[in-house]
Amino acid sequence: MKLVRYGEPGAEKPGLIDAEGAMRDLSAHIDDIGRKTLDPATLTRLAALDPASLPMVPAGARIGPCVADARNFVAVGLNFADHAAETGAPIPAEPILFNKAPSCIVGPNDDVVIPKGSQKTDWEIELAMVIGKRASYVAANDALAYVAGFCICHDVSEREFQMERGGTWSKGKGCPTFGPLGPWLVTPDEIADVQDLGMWLDVNGERMQTGSTKTMIFDCAQLVSYISHFMILEPGDVITTGTPPGVGTAMKPPRYLKAGDVVTMGIDGLGEQRQDVKAHQG
Amino acid sequence: MKLVRYGEPGAEKPGLIDAEGAMRDLSAHIDDIGRKTLDPATLTRLAALDPASLPMVPAGARIGPCVADARNFVAVGLNFADHAAETGAPIPAEPILFNKAPSCIVGPNDDVVIPKGSQKTDWEIELAMVIGKRASYVAANDALAYVAGFCICHDVSEREFQMERGGTWSKGKGCPTFGPLGPWLVTPDEIADVQDLGMWLDVNGERMQTGSTKTMIFDCAQLVSYISHFMILEPGDVITTGTPPGVGTAMKPPRYLKAGDVVTMGIDGLGEQRQDVKAHQG
Repeated sequence: MKLVRYGEPGAEKPGLIDAEGAMRDLSAHIDDIGRKTLDPATLTRLAALDPASLPMVPAGARIGPCVADARNFVAVGLNFADHAAETGAPIPAEPILFNKAPSCIVGPNDDVVIPKGSQKTDWEIELAMVIGKRASYVAANDALAYVAGFCICHDVSEREFQMERGGTWSKGKGCPTFGPLGPWLVTPDEIADVQDLGMWLDVNGERMQTGSTKTMIFDCAQLVSYISHFMILEPGDVITTGTPPGVGTAMKPPRYLKAGDVVTMGIDGLGEQRQDVKAHQG
Repeated sequence: MKLVRYGEPGAEKPGLIDAEGAMRDLSAHIDDIGRKTLDPATLTRLAALDPASLPMVPAGARIGPCVADARNFVAVGLNFADHAAETGAPIPAEPILFNKAPSCIVGPNDDVVIPKGSQKTDWEIELAMVIGKRASYVAANDALAYVAGFCICHDVSEREFQMERGGTWSKGKGCPTFGPLGPWLVTPDEIADVQDLGMWLDVNGERMQTGSTKTMIFDCAQLVSYISHFMILEPGDVITTGTPPGVGTAMKPPRYLKAGDVVTMGIDGLGEQRQDVKAHQG
């Protein structure tokens, strides 16, 4: 299944994408798609529905973030061997974790706003996992059973806030609009091999990032297992798994986003995002 | 007001503490005390109630965490001048931020569990703020208007996970049971000066930490303002503001918690916590 949330911000309704790529409404079958409703039994129930029996969503509806009400938004740093190399950082011996503020989550095609005072807003295409079952001290060989689905996360990053303002990376990762998620939450049965997905990101139509989940240092199963040894993961929690090469800060000279830019990106099987970059107002 | 949540884990009901120190039930007036319900209008409405008109809560009820459903649990590192000195760290030029997983939140008198494989579980008494109004780019002189109340946070910390496992501090801060919050959420009108509150923590009756919010490097108002420049703070979000001197890792030799220990702590006007330390089971 490709689950989706559509409608105005804060008032999204649940839906799914049918075989023809059209959006169908799931409101009669589930309140929302998020931490109060995501569990294996619910996903099994939804998968049994005939999409053709569901009302069509009128064309042009805004797509919201594909998970409602996420609480813990964990991110993994320097998790692609080729990206670690471009930044000059050593290959991490263990996953590097940081947090994105849950308040930064927006829809996949909503505007990305450059924060007040920012000079170094950068892009990062990432594969994210949404947890579907409480996970604590789970083994890697069982870890993907705790994942409800996969989606694209644009891990927008302010490099000065992240690296030059003291302490941990969180300051540059959770600014308003820095977490576009979606368009779809794709259940694992639709992904033949989550460690073999192509990834790309363009700025104004120019290819910046090209990569594959093949070059992850710690794969999705290892990440869920590892993180679950430090904290309980709950349904609706989001883990974004790191970015491939091609970020702006690693370019010579570095290149950052500016108002008016358009960022587009995609991951095999997970759809595409498109954001207009805006200046902070006020 | 001293707001409280009582009852079994996950099924807490809202209450308040009356002038005699007894717990009264607020279920007829508010669904819960947390991010869906905390706002200035609701607090004003609750403050207008006559506590004597509310049902008494039977004695012996468990006290839950004083905020339901917290989403962003932000912590500030090395924020007491005397604590920074004991760790040998320089005084930070800007607040150091990290995150505690929201899944670590427990009641003020619930057990603290030493994580699997931990050798260095440490204590930290802290003053926490709970946000009552969406805060983005707020000025310090207005920042406390966004705070619904104050409470004690035991910022339990695993020092090896925090400092020796690569990357940011989050790995040692969000383990299960590492976030006792409460007993009460105390509204700002009850606190004459939040920057003049005595703090203490004992292990097995032996005084380990003695401090005051006077020695905070960045005060509560500065912290809310600062953090709101990097992320939107939402109702129910928790900011814990750093610990005074006396943590176990700074002792010579270092001293850590072990199963069977009893940790007690208090902050002027905010009540006390008491936790039994348990070994991880399974």
